[in-house]
Amino acid sequence: MARYKLLIAYEGTHYHGWQVQPNGISIQSTLENVLKIILRKDVRIFGAGRTDAGVHALGQTAHLIHDDPIDPYKLRGSMNGLLPPDIRILSVEGVDDSFHAQYSATGKIYRYHLHLQTIESPFKRGFAWHIPYPLDLQAMQEASRMLLGRHDFTAFANESHRGVAAHDPVRTIQRIDFVEEPGGVYLEFEGEGFLYMMVRNIVGTLVEIASGKRSPQDIQRILASKDRRQAGQAAPPQGLFLVKVQYTPLSSK
Amino acid sequence: MARYKLLIAYEGTHYHGWQVQPNGISIQSTLENVLKIILRKDVRIFGAGRTDAGVHALGQTAHLIHDDPIDPYKLRGSMNGLLPPDIRILSVEGVDDSFHAQYSATGKIYRYHLHLQTIESPFKRGFAWHIPYPLDLQAMQEASRMLLGRHDFTAFANESHRGVAAHDPVRTIQRIDFVEEPGGVYLEFEGEGFLYMMVRNIVGTLVEIASGKRSPQDIQRILASKDRRQAGQAAPPQGLFLVKVQYTPLSSK
Repeated sequence: MARYKLLIAYEGTHYHGWQVQPNGISIQSTLENVLKIILRKDVRIFGAGRTDAGVHALGQTAHLIHDDPIDPYKLRGSMNGLLPPDIRILSVEGVDDSFHAQYSATGKIYRYHLHLQTIESPFKRGFAWHIPYPLDLQAMQEASRMLLGRHDFTAFANESHRGVAAHDPVRTIQRIDFVEEPGGVYLEFEGEGFLYMMVRNIVGTLVEIASGKRSPQDIQRILASKDRRQAGQAAPPQGLFLVKVQYTPLSSK
Repeated sequence: MARYKLLIAYEGTHYHGWQVQPNGISIQSTLENVLKIILRKDVRIFGAGRTDAGVHALGQTAHLIHDDPIDPYKLRGSMNGLLPPDIRILSVEGVDDSFHAQYSATGKIYRYHLHLQTIESPFKRGFAWHIPYPLDLQAMQEASRMLLGRHDFTAFANESHRGVAAHDPVRTIQRIDFVEEPGGVYLEFEGEGFLYMMVRNIVGTLVEIASGKRSPQDIQRILASKDRRQAGQAAPPQGLFLVKVQYTPLSSK
């Protein structure tokens, strides 16, 4: 048995998210269909985590298990030859049997892009949340600092599609950086892991603060409430990018 | 008679270029169709210059003439309400009768994006020329310096669609900057004007130099030849962006 780690970039616009869905094409099913052609059998892809419809990835990670060794470089070439151009395999590497894309992950980095100009640029469409009115970015940054560290993030999490809440809603956010870019700003989140919809619910709440609808101090009250209804509306999916899944450097082979 | 200057951004992917074409939808005809709905008559749009199919604009300029005064802010809103989202009117301003989008222009800025990674990013697709092999960017910069200043650029110009060469093929390039960006580099050209296909022919030739197929010194020989066949292949359209059309600050009203 041989195990391979895939690094994958995708534009989520035309997919119903990462996970195989009964209705609609997913990233995972597209990858599995291509593997079936190349390896001539059903091979399951295990992703580091789900991304929702419209969410993008610069560096999603997944693993697969195959009976026989495969040349990683050839597998990358064959997959990219068959995949649509909005999904690209950036790298394939052999990993040892203990590696699991989801359970071995030690952290994740997400970016959320805000497009802050009166008229929406044709080039940001589908890749940012367009907000045509002025935002108080200082209030937003002040509020974001209260989210750093270890907290029960129940108030910022949605139940999963199956209506299940996380067993352990305590997570640690190591960093929320604000980075200016042409036409707006992006927020970069680094944490050991994120609950379902957590980044989008945080960004939606921060934008309500930056719009003057709430005060930065609201964050502490929302965290303490452990009630999803106390936080703001979720930010739309197209601004969100999964940038990187982090692993301890042990598992490469 | 009232005259208005439009600042326009568009993604050129789905258009047959700026100019009205017998077959295929152009940016200009899309704008004119929308104006006909708003102003209830045929109004012609005069662009600062044509862009070819697949070429993008961050700041194309055009003007229109109308019998009656129009509220510029309302015209922008009405046009953006009817236009597809890959064309946006960034601003509308009243200008005096001497203003002409093409003939009043004193300069243009173009960018050409090179995507220099082994695997093409889904997010660069349609917005850069993907070159998966290493380039000698130093040789490219050395060659680009020989293009600066006033030259007869006949060797880097194509005949127009109507088979006509420029009356005066002498142009001045003030600056060619190389700017690193994630996943590659872009070249920014500033000049008083550019001949048909000139930026793409220059970039194509510079990439041949950076690939070791030609030496930087070839530039001088190509310029002196005044023969299009001596220069390299044109770079593909999707990497090219018209960034800005420059005017002397006199004509605003």
